Amino acid sequence: MKRIRLGVCGVGRIGRLHAENIAKNVEKAKLVAVADPIRSLANSVAKSLWVHMYTSPEEMMKKEELDGVVVATPTQTHADIVQLAVDTHLPVLLEKPIALTMKDANKIVSAVKRSGIKFQVGFNRRWDPSYIKAKRSIVKGKIGHPLTVKTCARDPKPPPDEYIKGSGGIFVDQCIHDIDVALWLMGSSVRQVWATGSTLVYPQFSRYGDYDNAIAILRFSNSALGIIEASRSSAYGYDLRTEVLGDSGQLSIGNWKEDSIRLSTKNGTMEDQYPWFMERFAESYRRESNGFCDYVAKGDASPVSAEEGRDALRIAIAARESARKNTTIYLSR
Amino acid sequence: MKRIRLGVCGVGRIGRLHAENIAKNVEKAKLVAVADPIRSLANSVAKSLWVHMYTSPEEMMKKEELDGVVVATPTQTHADIVQLAVDTHLPVLLEKPIALTMKDANKIVSAVKRSGIKFQVGFNRRWDPSYIKAKRSIVKGKIGHPLTVKTCARDPKPPPDEYIKGSGGIFVDQCIHDIDVALWLMGSSVRQVWATGSTLVYPQFSRYGDYDNAIAILRFSNSALGIIEASRSSAYGYDLRTEVLGDSGQLSIGNWKEDSIRLSTKNGTMEDQYPWFMERFAESYRRESNGFCDYVAKGDASPVSAEEGRDALRIAIAARESARKNTTIYLSR
Amino acid sequence: MKRIRLGVCGVGRIGRLHAENIAKNVEKAKLVAVADPIRSLANSVAKSLWVHMYTSPEEMMKKEELDGVVVATPTQTHADIVQLAVDTHLPVLLEKPIALTMKDANKIVSAVKRSGIKFQVGFNRRWDPSYIKAKRSIVKGKIGHPLTVKTCARDPKPPPDEYIKGSGGIFVDQCIHDIDVALWLMGSSVRQVWATGSTLVYPQFSRYGDYDNAIAILRFSNSALGIIEASRSSAYGYDLRTEVLGDSGQLSIGNWKEDSIRLSTKNGTMEDQYPWFMERFAESYRRESNGFCDYVAKGDASPVSAEEGRDALRIAIAARESARKNTTIYLSR
Amino acid sequence: MKRIRLGVCGVGRIGRLHAENIAKNVEKAKLVAVADPIRSLANSVAKSLWVHMYTSPEEMMKKEELDGVVVATPTQTHADIVQLAVDTHLPVLLEKPIALTMKDANKIVSAVKRSGIKFQVGFNRRWDPSYIKAKRSIVKGKIGHPLTVKTCARDPKPPPDEYIKGSGGIFVDQCIHDIDVALWLMGSSVRQVWATGSTLVYPQFSRYGDYDNAIAILRFSNSALGIIEASRSSAYGYDLRTEVLGDSGQLSIGNWKEDSIRLSTKNGTMEDQYPWFMERFAESYRRESNGFCDYVAKGDASPVSAEEGRDALRIAIAARESARKNTTIYLSR
Repeated sequence: MKRIRLGVCGVGRIGRLHAENIAKNVEKAKLVAVADPIRSLANSVAKSLWVHMYTSPEEMMKKEELDGVVVATPTQTHADIVQLAVDTHLPVLLEKPIALTMKDANKIVSAVKRSGIKFQVGFNRRWDPSYIKAKRSIVKGKIGHPLTVKTCARDPKPPPDEYIKGSGGIFVDQCIHDIDVALWLMGSSVRQVWATGSTLVYPQFSRYGDYDNAIAILRFSNSALGIIEASRSSAYGYDLRTEVLGDSGQLSIGNWKEDSIRLSTKNGTMEDQYPWFMERFAESYRRESNGFCDYVAKGDASPVSAEEGRDALRIAIAARESARKNTTIYLSR
Repeated sequence: MKRIRLGVCGVGRIGRLHAENIAKNVEKAKLVAVADPIRSLANSVAKSLWVHMYTSPEEMMKKEELDGVVVATPTQTHADIVQLAVDTHLPVLLEKPIALTMKDANKIVSAVKRSGIKFQVGFNRRWDPSYIKAKRSIVKGKIGHPLTVKTCARDPKPPPDEYIKGSGGIFVDQCIHDIDVALWLMGSSVRQVWATGSTLVYPQFSRYGDYDNAIAILRFSNSALGIIEASRSSAYGYDLRTEVLGDSGQLSIGNWKEDSIRLSTKNGTMEDQYPWFMERFAESYRRESNGFCDYVAKGDASPVSAEEGRDALRIAIAARESARKNTTIYLSR
Repeated sequence: MKRIRLGVCGVGRIGRLHAENIAKNVEKAKLVAVADPIRSLANSVAKSLWVHMYTSPEEMMKKEELDGVVVATPTQTHADIVQLAVDTHLPVLLEKPIALTMKDANKIVSAVKRSGIKFQVGFNRRWDPSYIKAKRSIVKGKIGHPLTVKTCARDPKPPPDEYIKGSGGIFVDQCIHDIDVALWLMGSSVRQVWATGSTLVYPQFSRYGDYDNAIAILRFSNSALGIIEASRSSAYGYDLRTEVLGDSGQLSIGNWKEDSIRLSTKNGTMEDQYPWFMERFAESYRRESNGFCDYVAKGDASPVSAEEGRDALRIAIAARESARKNTTIYLSR
Repeated sequence: MKRIRLGVCGVGRIGRLHAENIAKNVEKAKLVAVADPIRSLANSVAKSLWVHMYTSPEEMMKKEELDGVVVATPTQTHADIVQLAVDTHLPVLLEKPIALTMKDANKIVSAVKRSGIKFQVGFNRRWDPSYIKAKRSIVKGKIGHPLTVKTCARDPKPPPDEYIKGSGGIFVDQCIHDIDVALWLMGSSVRQVWATGSTLVYPQFSRYGDYDNAIAILRFSNSALGIIEASRSSAYGYDLRTEVLGDSGQLSIGNWKEDSIRLSTKNGTMEDQYPWFMERFAESYRRESNGFCDYVAKGDASPVSAEEGRDALRIAIAARESARKNTTIYLSR
């Protein structure tokens, strides 16, 4: 198979991860160029990966012969960059969340629909072996009809203040993954959200109207229930778990480790911290990019559509609103 | 030590468990008599345990030389029976929940206070080795300042319709244990409750305005958060877990088994179902009764006071109200 | 059921455990008296349990109206004390190992056989919920035909020098439990033993021709294999595991804990040490005594016969000999 | 860094794994050609990976500009092919076992020594994250002085008869990995071996003087002990574990899975089979090849030397002899 030629827009933490993966570990793709307005960053990534560099995504899309672009720029730029790709008729793999506002999300959904470009949202957990297995087991009926989904996502450290400020808040930035997983695993839409949050450890969150610990409760259209729990202050490391209770059983997706070591001493038996998401989900990012290549090469339906990206955002925004007003939010479609 | 002479009022499921424990496994107690208005039941339990039987608690309390009574009658009778004990100046170990209404709960708290009788609420988890260890570790600061508590309590089967009807609903009947545990482990009061419930598997619950799956979210006075999740439809058996996230770590109280067997075959590796609460908490019930004997013999402060029983009930009732009205409930004290 | 009246001979560590169990936790038994040549010991145990005391087992057996005796005296006295019980026609529950020499073991087997007294060897693991479940699963064919058994038994600390001296060595004193379990679970006799041992941590063991770490390899009559591994120097606490590989699966009996706590901090996730055998096997000792009562009351076949006690001893002695000579030992029957 | 140009000799199961890894997943290497006497096999692998093909390793080594060769041909050919590499002055990564006979092993050690070529034995577990972490922890003193090592290696199915025939038997073919791991983790040589084996499930093994289940006991020069246990008949899948007991703790390397799913139903809680070695050790094979590239590019000491390959073989051959003669074998150096 001919390798799919990709350019990466935005090479901050997650964009750089994509660029490196595509250059080294994604067998179906070939990294051609990277673009980032921060020239020094674009330069250093491009150099280390032996590819071209640009400070403008537009220029990259126009000058390079690309089969697709991976967009990992700050969220507020997503709508504009997707429009550039639409203009160039380039398939897009867009990092989560799809946008910070419903207005932007709607703009993206419309642009994608009208243009007919291939478009995939970067919900990487959809490509994780454990989540895939869970989804398949549920579809096969292993737990019967799903009743309740519970997610737990705890980050060991807060992001930098600058990031918090533009992130859209814990529900839009962090819980969006869990909301998407909940929608996907439950196979139902959400009609009601209630949420709450507290700033208990890192005061900077409250300065931005945000929280370092938060909970959202979902009611699905079929009356199933969901618990989304998140923390930015997990002193014991990354903790990422999901459970689905069905009417004939339960599936749990637990934490996971690269090693299988246990150390027993007079203090008891110890396992090391669970790895940070970069290691925990390394395989999922590789598969995501490979999946994007397959989609570009021959797929007809998007693995994760713009509409799905918008659905998760709608719920995340409702959760934020609920937490602020301390009231139940009803979603109409 | 002289054994504490106890009578048991009410020998349905949980009362019978108490009676048998006290007769056989509680070294500090001696079972003297049982009372139950259902004569055949009182008779059969009394016979098998070689003790006296009564159909009236009042008669038992008057005729027998008792050091205390264990009350495990239907919840709506609690206030009256506590009053009988107060009249006879008998220490009481009262099964949870303390009452079905705040009015009754207040009556009990007042009667206990005025009379000065020894009074202990039957929150058995307070006596479980795992929960005790968790509480001690938190007090010692092992996880730092508590931020979030999460409880999961899932019963494999619904109780009989008659029981559901008089139970006070899932929050008052089942979640009350978890609410008490949350209050105890977090060491803070609750100032706000939001809850929701669904009837997804057993339609009988909705006939009584009840739910077979429910979630309550607590905000503590110190802004800490709590998730109380319960199910009456856990097809895979009893599932009972609690987690407390603190600002320097996490404590989890997992499921527990009497055996340590794992069976590996071509289908994978299998562990048997976790045992039903009668086995899971057998040790806690023994310790609870022994603890009551210590309290009767020499204690000055109640291990689980009437006020604590009322605190948990207040929150459970608020959760029920929240779920009905779909609105946040604020608690004043 | 009338309680079975028991006397306990020898109230050192394990005898005292039996005495206390029978007095408090074994519902089918009633402790009547204890005997120990160390008067102060006999006295203190008898007093704390409100029973009679003797310094001579013979006197106890003659003066008390007993239904049976539990013998937990030093192993070299077993044959003589069993003879006393035979003379008094008293059922015996005899602690492991049955004897230190094959001569004594044969004497006991003959005396029991000739007299027809009820006789049970104190292999307590036969009464442990996990081991019972394992045995049942194997009998039901859950793992098919057993191919290999592996046992691991590690004690956190060496016994006192005086004990080591008279213990018969690590194979006869400690591994005898594992050898019995292996014979029982595999359902076959052993025809060949090879063993080795080292003194790696506590030099006192080598002074008595003993080892602090040892391994014995068994070949069963049906060519199945066994690994018996033991340590007296397990710095991380008691470690007790057994695995049976069959031709269609594997059963593992893992360590077990009274609590289900896990503590996660920046150092990783920690479980406390596994409990010492007194807690790990508390339930098995209770069941063992209850089982002895059932056997005395109505059983016809011994739950653990004198012959089984002798079989395990024969293998343990062969292992000791093999380790000394560094050669394979063949067993004839 | 310039990629290291590699050719692969032998593209059966493990050679093909190497070739595919090097072509796709080993960032420091570039696959240039493959050689296999079975033309159709060489052809199909070469075609799928877009590289040159040869039916003779000699021709490949002469015609291609290589920086090194990976040798995964049948073990009896190892000595000759290493000689070819020596003649061409090419670094070699040689699959385990180094040879089938001590004569061949000595030949290889001498040829490598005389020629000074870079030479690495393919003990892939040395590159596995869990084993590396274990080794580091031991070196750091986390368990104190090592006393006992236990390995368990169970394959789900027997290899083809043809393979069994030329494999050197279970000790030389399968246990060699575990023997190497034991030597490496314990940091001591072995001075005595006793072993036994049985054919319990697949009669074909006994036709070749081999066993489907086997155990070897090692005594190290420092009196530490080792248990090597292997099976070719593990109906429940691949089972690969290692434990090291030290005088202040224990390290266990357990089984490992790509996913973290647990499914709970009325039958209990189930985890899928542990993955086959190809998945379990996928990462280790990648790292092994990358490590070989580093060694070729700049290393001075072999990560796994020819002498280490010979040490493990010596013990494996002694185990086979011990099992045949049922006697203890002493190793001199």
